[in-house]
Amino acid sequence: MSVTLYVCTTCRMGRADPAEGPRPGARLLAALQAAGAPDGVRIRPVECLSACDHGCNIALAGPGRWSYVYRGLDPDRDVPDILAGVAAYARTPDGLVPWRERPVIFRKQSLARIPPMESPE
Amino acid sequence: MSVTLYVCTTCRMGRADPAEGPRPGARLLAALQAAGAPDGVRIRPVECLSACDHGCNIALAGPGRWSYVYRGLDPDRDVPDILAGVAAYARTPDGLVPWRERPVIFRKQSLARIPPMESPE
Repeated sequence: MSVTLYVCTTCRMGRADPAEGPRPGARLLAALQAAGAPDGVRIRPVECLSACDHGCNIALAGPGRWSYVYRGLDPDRDVPDILAGVAAYARTPDGLVPWRERPVIFRKQSLARIPPMESPE
Repeated sequence: MSVTLYVCTTCRMGRADPAEGPRPGARLLAALQAAGAPDGVRIRPVECLSACDHGCNIALAGPGRWSYVYRGLDPDRDVPDILAGVAAYARTPDGLVPWRERPVIFRKQSLARIPPMESPE
């Protein structure tokens, strides 16, 4: 189990809190969990990825891999593409999925990426 | 040596390429290196943090720590504050610096953060 998909559960998609029911970020987490994690991926909730203007936000990370943060995701629309993108990420050794193999949402809605952790000196 | 400060050397601060001389991101790297890394911090260049609309960008990372990406930094203005913020980050076990101890640029110009890497299952 090498790759983690973090889902911000406090994201509100730039809107006021819903009058009832969970926030969009919590709905996105539930929808991803219901669809099921791809092989080698675990799904984890996180409270705030510090990108609140851009929600719903997710992050991908894994040992030896570049980490990515994606923004502007929609729990009612993007679950299949997120899971396809995470599965492709999990199949790489370094997190670098060829551009054309990334879902369009990952090509267009990347917020930032961070290099793989180096071994301590 | 546990904390890495990544500096995007390709950042252009949203401008056209300079007519001559290095890009703002490369100038930021050089200025940080000239000032000297705080204890426990290594400074590393990186080509693109995928946040090109927001440069100059940096990232902080370290084992067991939250990673942070900061945006909108100015090589002519922000070097002392960046180094103070990275030093504070390096003094924490988890990367979570108390809010009031963060430089203003880190409070206002956070682009995203990613949780610490979990141990493999």
